[in-house]
Amino acid sequence: MPRTTVGIIGAGPAGLLLSHLLHRQGIDSTVLERRSRDHVEHRQRAGILEQGTVDVLRASGAAARMDRQGLEHHGIELRFDRRSHRIDFPSRAGGRSVMVYAQTEVVKDLIALRRQDGGTVLFEAEALSVDGARTEHPSIRYRHQGAEHTLDCAYVVACDGFHGIGRRSVPEGGLTVVERDYPFSWLGILADVPPSCEELIYAHHERGFALHSMRSPRVSRLYLQVDPEDTTGDWPDERIWGELETRLAIDGDWTLRRGPITEKSITPMRSFVSEPMRHGRLFLAGDAAHIVPPTGAKGLNLAVADVTLLAQALTRHQAHGDESGLDAYSETALRRVWRAEHFSYTMTTLLHADPAETAFDRALRLSQLRYLASSAAASASLAENYVGFTED
Amino acid sequence: MPRTTVGIIGAGPAGLLLSHLLHRQGIDSTVLERRSRDHVEHRQRAGILEQGTVDVLRASGAAARMDRQGLEHHGIELRFDRRSHRIDFPSRAGGRSVMVYAQTEVVKDLIALRRQDGGTVLFEAEALSVDGARTEHPSIRYRHQGAEHTLDCAYVVACDGFHGIGRRSVPEGGLTVVERDYPFSWLGILADVPPSCEELIYAHHERGFALHSMRSPRVSRLYLQVDPEDTTGDWPDERIWGELETRLAIDGDWTLRRGPITEKSITPMRSFVSEPMRHGRLFLAGDAAHIVPPTGAKGLNLAVADVTLLAQALTRHQAHGDESGLDAYSETALRRVWRAEHFSYTMTTLLHADPAETAFDRALRLSQLRYLASSAAASASLAENYVGFTED
Repeated sequence: MPRTTVGIIGAGPAGLLLSHLLHRQGIDSTVLERRSRDHVEHRQRAGILEQGTVDVLRASGAAARMDRQGLEHHGIELRFDRRSHRIDFPSRAGGRSVMVYAQTEVVKDLIALRRQDGGTVLFEAEALSVDGARTEHPSIRYRHQGAEHTLDCAYVVACDGFHGIGRRSVPEGGLTVVERDYPFSWLGILADVPPSCEELIYAHHERGFALHSMRSPRVSRLYLQVDPEDTTGDWPDERIWGELETRLAIDGDWTLRRGPITEKSITPMRSFVSEPMRHGRLFLAGDAAHIVPPTGAKGLNLAVADVTLLAQALTRHQAHGDESGLDAYSETALRRVWRAEHFSYTMTTLLHADPAETAFDRALRLSQLRYLASSAAASASLAENYVGFTED
Repeated sequence: MPRTTVGIIGAGPAGLLLSHLLHRQGIDSTVLERRSRDHVEHRQRAGILEQGTVDVLRASGAAARMDRQGLEHHGIELRFDRRSHRIDFPSRAGGRSVMVYAQTEVVKDLIALRRQDGGTVLFEAEALSVDGARTEHPSIRYRHQGAEHTLDCAYVVACDGFHGIGRRSVPEGGLTVVERDYPFSWLGILADVPPSCEELIYAHHERGFALHSMRSPRVSRLYLQVDPEDTTGDWPDERIWGELETRLAIDGDWTLRRGPITEKSITPMRSFVSEPMRHGRLFLAGDAAHIVPPTGAKGLNLAVADVTLLAQALTRHQAHGDESGLDAYSETALRRVWRAEHFSYTMTTLLHADPAETAFDRALRLSQLRYLASSAAASASLAENYVGFTED
């Protein structure tokens, strides 16, 4: 029967980084991933790494390509009322910045590293259940190459996302869930065209939110707030570019460059937290435990923070029998999670047009946007949340 | 027929201060007040003067008693989760502070000054209508000592509060109103007992908001969030003190001093803005144009800011025929108004328990309270809003 110290479900950035961090502490793990390697390496996700995420990748030797190809960003641009306002990060947030480097590239780098270090990452291995989580011998039942197997573990960590088996393996009553849906979705595109800006542009327009981001000096990543009922069929390329132009427009000299759209998808917006992030020897990390709307660029960074905590706690337990880190994991992680939930909610409601909002709501938003653009304290608060907190 | 340059409706702090400021520029005015002098001098209202309000009173020679009896406060205390967190003002908000000095005392001082300077303040003079606001010769029809009179003016300023005749004199379609009600009210008491704290305490408790303030070193002013359907009959003294003790309680050494309650009232909470704040030669100022929930202590300060702007603009027009200040009045005033509306809304929703709120809302609030208590940027933002902005 296969056996490992830490059974990890999911080969996204959380599961892979955890496996990598544990390896560096001499702890073996097995990563089970339902999808193929090719699928995992090409799915488009977030692309903003907080300073703390960059630090963890660098300290663990996983940042070589990021340091060559990533784009360090020292600020963002806010647009509203056809005007542009820059929020500087280093001067507002104690020297910290962010790195633009796609999650999918982080995943490729970590898979390559795990392969190079002889790590076990099983693709097309679908976890079916986590059993014995309340015992000292938890296990993962999974299907691989047509057969069912059981992986015996000392600990199980579910990094298998919102729809994964990990959270659903906790018995009824073991978790408290709070959530909130939003009356809009994001249409995201990748386009083969150099970005029309050097830094990200977060735009509020009465027609809705728009975000201009980038993947590389030659690939633009753009988003539009759309109706949650919309499908990509409702959004032919011409309509997307026209709407982006309208929402990003400012008085003065600025042009949105158009190029071939190579990917188009619609993502719903959700806030979700399940507590605690532990059930016996089963730990939840990343999207398996919490979801933020993407406006604050926090999802990937929370996942990295979770598994960084977990790697430290598991190491202390393995090396010294010290359970304190594991016992504190959920509470410690949730403090950061709720800060990010609040920030993501605030950025989302600040920048989107809510079809149900009142004239009072709209006027408050305008006042808050103007205040953000003019107050050092308010922009410092946005900046420190955006670049992320480096201590807990 | 009586005649004046500026006809002012309402002898609250806005109307009286405007009359006083105009007098210092050699511009005559008449103040019409529906209630008696005794009533006006004894109604309990707010008690926190922003730095900018203090500066205006001092610069206009109206601060002598305030400077003797007012209590300068350099911070507030936030309480939640049975813990106390201080927010320092001078270090967070560029050296600015606030003054604790009751609005009713400001009113007494201004009435005395107006009398001393030979100003005309007619009490028990009820304004019935403002006529000819769109002409060069507006007038106020009013009732005084059983007879109706008409006061001919060059300008009319309505400082007559939310329920006043001023705003209602603007024809249908002349104003746009936005508003929001809250599902709670404030029960306020005055008690003959020295305050149990040196600075104001803003407390969030799962049972609701509580505020410990003071009027003087011997008189405490306290507030409780209550149901909007409640009457003072629902709140015998013993229940008030018990609820205050519960909501203000912290772990550690602190005691709420009790004393005879000398006044008890319940006030609804409302956000309200009508735009523009001008209709021809009729100008609206203070509560006549906008209402904030009292949590941010902004109502009186907005009124003072409005009439300070108006006094400058009227002076420029009278002296030099320069209409630019009058033309800019509404837009300039509304920028401050909306900042205060946003701040007051934020403080209100942050500190009150909303019967309809979700677990998600509650968790966001807790995260925001913790963040406020720990982030220099977040507390600086609260502090600068609380002490007020001194430039527009």
